[in-house]
Amino acid sequence: MIERETLLFANEAFYRAFADRDFAAMEAVWASDGPIACIHPGWPPLSGRDAVVDSWRRILANDESPQVVCRQPTAYLHGDVAFVICFESVGSAALVATNIFRREGRQWRMIHHQAGPAPAMPQPDEDADPPPRPN
Amino acid sequence: MIERETLLFANEAFYRAFADRDFAAMEAVWASDGPIACIHPGWPPLSGRDAVVDSWRRILANDESPQVVCRQPTAYLHGDVAFVICFESVGSAALVATNIFRREGRQWRMIHHQAGPAPAMPQPDEDADPPPRPN
Repeated sequence: MIERETLLFANEAFYRAFADRDFAAMEAVWASDGPIACIHPGWPPLSGRDAVVDSWRRILANDESPQVVCRQPTAYLHGDVAFVICFESVGSAALVATNIFRREGRQWRMIHHQAGPAPAMPQPDEDADPPPRPN
Repeated sequence: MIERETLLFANEAFYRAFADRDFAAMEAVWASDGPIACIHPGWPPLSGRDAVVDSWRRILANDESPQVVCRQPTAYLHGDVAFVICFESVGSAALVATNIFRREGRQWRMIHHQAGPAPAMPQPDEDADPPPRPN
């Protein structure tokens, strides 16, 4: 249970850094060594820490970058590597993301992120009734 | 090097099972235990072996499912878990995919797949010159 909670905490730290436009926090989310990658929606894949971190520097510095809220994160643990699947609420649009983490000491650090279009946001706000499941 | 080759072989086996409409081979690609997931383009995430394998049963049985060709797979090794990023050529459309694998004995078995739209297919046919690497 603790592993799952620390994993979801790391996933939350990623979205908090994004929401806060906090580049130092975002840089700390990503693994410091080992092969990493990132697929932003509509971008070609980025490979390697320099390219990935630089992309986040530019995204967080851009005032027109959308606000992103993480919803319904689910953890999949596989030893020292784990992934989280969650929805991303981006304005009125819905994305779905895969975030892969690797354990570095006591921390989970991100080694990959892919976000792409989702058919629908299952829970647009916490007070609404859940929408029907898309096919 | 052998690890990377066997990983890319497992990734290729996934696309071969898809191309051949070979459900038994597709079933064997996926990990037999542990938490698995799959995000087909435009679908909500599927969680657990039963849901994932059943989705492939339906896709492979559907004669209208598109032919998918894997291009430019790149391996990211992290011990007993690894992921592959590749482009998928689907008719004239381009997708980009993350495929996560876990070692089971001597084999790499898939534990997650997400595919979503790519901005462009860098290598539309094998006779073309290799495209520039994405940034």
